[in-house]
Amino acid sequence: MPVTITAVEGIPEVRAGDDLAALIHAAAERQGLAFEDGDVIVVTQKAVSKAEGRLVDLNDVAPSPLAVELATNWEKDPRHVEVVLRESKRIVRMDRGVIICETRHGFVCANAGVDASNAPDGRLVLLPLDPDASARRIRDGLRRLAGADVAVIVSDTFGRPWRSGFTEVAIGVAGMLPIIDYVGKVDTQGRELRATWICVADELASAAELVTGKLNRVPAALIRGYAVPRGEGSARDILREAEKDMFR
Amino acid sequence: MPVTITAVEGIPEVRAGDDLAALIHAAAERQGLAFEDGDVIVVTQKAVSKAEGRLVDLNDVAPSPLAVELATNWEKDPRHVEVVLRESKRIVRMDRGVIICETRHGFVCANAGVDASNAPDGRLVLLPLDPDASARRIRDGLRRLAGADVAVIVSDTFGRPWRSGFTEVAIGVAGMLPIIDYVGKVDTQGRELRATWICVADELASAAELVTGKLNRVPAALIRGYAVPRGEGSARDILREAEKDMFR
Repeated sequence: MPVTITAVEGIPEVRAGDDLAALIHAAAERQGLAFEDGDVIVVTQKAVSKAEGRLVDLNDVAPSPLAVELATNWEKDPRHVEVVLRESKRIVRMDRGVIICETRHGFVCANAGVDASNAPDGRLVLLPLDPDASARRIRDGLRRLAGADVAVIVSDTFGRPWRSGFTEVAIGVAGMLPIIDYVGKVDTQGRELRATWICVADELASAAELVTGKLNRVPAALIRGYAVPRGEGSARDILREAEKDMFR
Repeated sequence: MPVTITAVEGIPEVRAGDDLAALIHAAAERQGLAFEDGDVIVVTQKAVSKAEGRLVDLNDVAPSPLAVELATNWEKDPRHVEVVLRESKRIVRMDRGVIICETRHGFVCANAGVDASNAPDGRLVLLPLDPDASARRIRDGLRRLAGADVAVIVSDTFGRPWRSGFTEVAIGVAGMLPIIDYVGKVDTQGRELRATWICVADELASAAELVTGKLNRVPAALIRGYAVPRGEGSARDILREAEKDMFR
């Protein structure tokens, strides 16, 4: 049986206070999709953040002297730089107009995940405060509405060192373990495996991006046919411990 | 229409000199799979390297003094360390028993992609010399055998900074562009997009890993229903230029 990845289409523009599980469930029903036990639902961070009201109005931001200085050097909006600094607990690199941050959650990414897209309404989108909790809420909602025990991933678009182009990663999970541990397992030849931990949450997030895309407003995808490792995992399980990281 | 990911099953253990396209085509036919124009075939590096005879016998390796010293410090086989050093053109980090290398192709990964699995027959598997060329050969073979114009990705399992767990990435491509460039594109709200380049080759490689897995001997997957960006791309397009990389 193949693994299938289906866009959940027709979800309206998400607003603060919206019940994302209800929006996803209604859109899936209109499409004739019924969620099943074992399905994986991947929801983009932007939709989650909007539903949770994680927006900041640039007019409400008073930039610090550091933000003003950085912004001046790089021809950026100092209020935007200020928001990035506030969302960070550590700066990993700051160079060439790019700030690689460790977010309050521990994710390492550019601009602390603050959406730097043109904001005609003058607002920036921040990461959810607790993306695991966001995923759990959507999972609980879908269990209630669809009667199905699904896993949920909240995904975001991150860059990475050495390789051009962004890929989608998991910043929140519910109802699954994000990493499969093959330690001690052997392949069909009886050889111990080389790559011993596979981050399937990130692979599922990337697979979902093949249908959510970037230009079409598709904030959710259904992945079916993949035997996701069940358990009460957290996206924090994906964060590499400082003492094991060679690139901090 | 969903995107589907199907394991190409029943491919026998690959040996040096094997025609991988023929093995994949025959296995797909036995499975009732007929390749179509626009399909993406993802083939794991290990199968490609074995078919191309990219193996080295540890008994033939004379370790350098540096390899001996490193191996002694880390309780490793000095011949294995020697092979890693030979496959590298630059060492990015060398610490805690891990060597992060820039391979001759320019990929940055642990141990220069040299397979450190237990090798009961005393051999190590190296990366293909030119993984784009490997992908092109498979693509040409499948066009000849199946009459279909498919894209081919050669994938490998890489770690990454900051995030635990490995994911699958593209080290060779044929018949596609590995990165979609959204520069200047706007979303449905008329806002310019934030994450402007998406490395779809890596996302497709990760999606394929959901069915090739690690324990079952499935060296190839078929991805159907994804409108892959066509063109004569190269996995070199994914390598970030040194002057734009903050983590060299």
